Amino acid sequence: MESHLDKLEINCDMGEGFGRWKMGPDEELMPYIDAANIACGFHAGDPSLMLKTIRLAKKHGVKAGAHPGLPDLVGFGRRRLEIDPHDMYTSVLYQVGALKAMLDAEDVPLNHIKPHGELFFYMMRDAPVRNAVLDACAHFHVPVYGCRNPEWKAPCDERGLFFQEELYVDIDYDREGRLVPVAKSQKASPELISGRVTSGGLDDTTLDNEGNTLVLGFEGRPFSICIHSDMPAALENASAARKAVDEVNSKKRFSR
Amino acid sequence: MESHLDKLEINCDMGEGFGRWKMGPDEELMPYIDAANIACGFHAGDPSLMLKTIRLAKKHGVKAGAHPGLPDLVGFGRRRLEIDPHDMYTSVLYQVGALKAMLDAEDVPLNHIKPHGELFFYMMRDAPVRNAVLDACAHFHVPVYGCRNPEWKAPCDERGLFFQEELYVDIDYDREGRLVPVAKSQKASPELISGRVTSGGLDDTTLDNEGNTLVLGFEGRPFSICIHSDMPAALENASAARKAVDEVNSKKRFSR
Amino acid sequence: MESHLDKLEINCDMGEGFGRWKMGPDEELMPYIDAANIACGFHAGDPSLMLKTIRLAKKHGVKAGAHPGLPDLVGFGRRRLEIDPHDMYTSVLYQVGALKAMLDAEDVPLNHIKPHGELFFYMMRDAPVRNAVLDACAHFHVPVYGCRNPEWKAPCDERGLFFQEELYVDIDYDREGRLVPVAKSQKASPELISGRVTSGGLDDTTLDNEGNTLVLGFEGRPFSICIHSDMPAALENASAARKAVDEVNSKKRFSR
Amino acid sequence: MESHLDKLEINCDMGEGFGRWKMGPDEELMPYIDAANIACGFHAGDPSLMLKTIRLAKKHGVKAGAHPGLPDLVGFGRRRLEIDPHDMYTSVLYQVGALKAMLDAEDVPLNHIKPHGELFFYMMRDAPVRNAVLDACAHFHVPVYGCRNPEWKAPCDERGLFFQEELYVDIDYDREGRLVPVAKSQKASPELISGRVTSGGLDDTTLDNEGNTLVLGFEGRPFSICIHSDMPAALENASAARKAVDEVNSKKRFSR
Repeated sequence: MESHLDKLEINCDMGEGFGRWKMGPDEELMPYIDAANIACGFHAGDPSLMLKTIRLAKKHGVKAGAHPGLPDLVGFGRRRLEIDPHDMYTSVLYQVGALKAMLDAEDVPLNHIKPHGELFFYMMRDAPVRNAVLDACAHFHVPVYGCRNPEWKAPCDERGLFFQEELYVDIDYDREGRLVPVAKSQKASPELISGRVTSGGLDDTTLDNEGNTLVLGFEGRPFSICIHSDMPAALENASAARKAVDEVNSKKRFSR
Repeated sequence: MESHLDKLEINCDMGEGFGRWKMGPDEELMPYIDAANIACGFHAGDPSLMLKTIRLAKKHGVKAGAHPGLPDLVGFGRRRLEIDPHDMYTSVLYQVGALKAMLDAEDVPLNHIKPHGELFFYMMRDAPVRNAVLDACAHFHVPVYGCRNPEWKAPCDERGLFFQEELYVDIDYDREGRLVPVAKSQKASPELISGRVTSGGLDDTTLDNEGNTLVLGFEGRPFSICIHSDMPAALENASAARKAVDEVNSKKRFSR
Repeated sequence: MESHLDKLEINCDMGEGFGRWKMGPDEELMPYIDAANIACGFHAGDPSLMLKTIRLAKKHGVKAGAHPGLPDLVGFGRRRLEIDPHDMYTSVLYQVGALKAMLDAEDVPLNHIKPHGELFFYMMRDAPVRNAVLDACAHFHVPVYGCRNPEWKAPCDERGLFFQEELYVDIDYDREGRLVPVAKSQKASPELISGRVTSGGLDDTTLDNEGNTLVLGFEGRPFSICIHSDMPAALENASAARKAVDEVNSKKRFSR
Repeated sequence: MESHLDKLEINCDMGEGFGRWKMGPDEELMPYIDAANIACGFHAGDPSLMLKTIRLAKKHGVKAGAHPGLPDLVGFGRRRLEIDPHDMYTSVLYQVGALKAMLDAEDVPLNHIKPHGELFFYMMRDAPVRNAVLDACAHFHVPVYGCRNPEWKAPCDERGLFFQEELYVDIDYDREGRLVPVAKSQKASPELISGRVTSGGLDDTTLDNEGNTLVLGFEGRPFSICIHSDMPAALENASAARKAVDEVNSKKRFSR
């Protein structure tokens, strides 16, 4: 599967409340983003919130993706949980299938699948789990989103899946190009975010958390930029990213 | 939608364990039945058990249906829970969609949807909830199973849904043709079950719990016979029902 | 058991988040209140949040009570759920016992038990459930809190339980003295709250939602005033209530 | 705290169903055992099953202990879950406190605490988690049960907790004295179990899974023998163990 992007876009986690509990300012964020990663009920989200988020995305012309996670509401899918790869395969089928039925009901296509939180890190360090999740994704024939890394391309290719690489601009990268957790990252100002979008988009570089230039490695391919919806400054961050993304897209022609 | 049956069949709830906990003898029952109602994780069932049950059904040539329930694991979906109709709509989309993704992955068609336990009774007494559940079912374009009753035909027709009527043969009916709970029904022997299948299939009658003849009202249309998988004598019951169903089917031609 | 109050006090639901999800501004509210109703994990609350809330109450010299609810996280314990009275008995023992162990660990006494949301309403309309819950409460030998109503005094007395009556000042009462749901109540301004505390405390009256004078019926007994922690203006409301309560307490001598 | 035993005893996990789901034949096992480890709702057990199990133990004169586990119903508390030690501390307080309230209501003392499944293994490999769990146990002032191992004595001693060592007789030990999982152990016959109780009790030895003599290291102290309640032959195993334990106890005087 080829890239489905021809320019930069912004993706954001959405629908991460549960029952009466809210997480980010979803409604206010929608105007700034291109793609929503919708929680599917395992780490966050409940059926009615899922449908509400789909309708919100539809109203704003935002693409809707599935955001499956580990079965861990109280830990928000961020705790390590050792799961049999087969159980992980069935859990991803379950979650994405549940969302897919709602998308079908609303005539909204499933745009992508983005593994949430610890599920993503689990896939990074455990090949059988990664393969199991990708096997599940392969049934839906949509791109898989993830932070740029060399290990996912081959297993995605083998399954006919397009791996859509992402750049994070509201948390830091370390010298080796790995994501730094929110708590250890510097506070992202709109200026910082804007600068990161611009240097990433135009020069394929960013500054790591020690101030050194880091080559991102997108090599002219369009990427998706992830903005956290649960930071206190989420709206300002998204607004700054939107403006910078639009400027980069007006200046540069990306190859696929 | 027309009837999808041209003769009697047997349906049975399957996959009603959870994690390490088992409910009925699913594997042993499969050879006796035509259609499996597979629990979808809300009243019972977990993703891996769902897939296992689908594969079991496939292996035995048993049709696979969705068996959505109320979100109540500890109460096995049998307690009254007052749910907003919209939440019920999204919960059924969620559950059936989750199962559907697994069926698609296994190249097994979704045969039907049968509401479980208290969800069925909720739909019997509350029109907005019934309509909400049927709205959800309508997105899947498959028959809805339920104990024969006059109230469901019209709302199914309006949504282009076929309402597949059922007969229960291991619990009693009362004088008004209503199901009697398991605990208050006489213990069903294989002979009793066999007799009920025969009189129901050939004469459209059964004996109520006071010994009076009850006209069932199928009027020559083929129906689906439900056998409980969680009774101590489930296997003997299913075996007796199978034999009797095959005999009726060899003797009688059903109209659609 | 006699009243444990000799003047008006303010109670407030606390610890009603779950995992990463927050509900009210607990920390900011603590300085204004006398007693915290701490969620016990069934409608909200998780073990670490429970302990955190206990420590917060202890730090502010706020009395700590248990706030058991129906087992319904996604519905926040506000949906009707038909539960066998015996199951309700064991569920309340379970929840209050869990909190009690944490209170013991922190050397904080259990001050009271206040049934949450729909559990309170369930007890209002269903005598067997009310009795079952009070049977569970009786094992802890502390007052039971609830909105003033004539039906609870006798069953509390029979079990040696003190029934601590409450007044709500941020939602309306109707002509019959019944609570009006938040959504149908007028928005409570600090002035309104202050006025209600004063008229309730000094004159035993309030204005119902049609503007008529309603006699509250406390008849000089001190009562507990409940402030919602999850309203947008919770802090302003609590501050106004605190000031008014302190004024009433300085002016009036309550009998027990 | 000194040993609370003066001879061998048998302990067994009890109340490990959930809602309608059963695990072992609790009622039939009770006559054979001395101590019940009662599941507390996190890996298995629900409030009503907990109370039912307490009453069953009381009726049979069986001592009642708490059997807290990881919060993982679908995995039966047997999957690795990385939990913050503080969260583990609060989770054990919560579970044991919940059971304690029911024991108090039934006038049955809390006899001991035995960590379940993966929680036990987690405590074996992770000192901060072990300390956190033992800190929680210390609030209840009862012995902690666990398979004999040298690491737990000191941290128990520091907290004034008695560590009651156990011997397993229906699964194997390897050459290093570590437990072999059920699936990899030989099928335990009543004869094998009987022999293990006798050699363990009288000679402080057993045969490892390669047939070599393994010194157990109890050195004359009385220990508790754990029998699995969820094996197909649980009743025969318990009966054989009971007979052998009674014989050893009649022959040998244990020191404390």
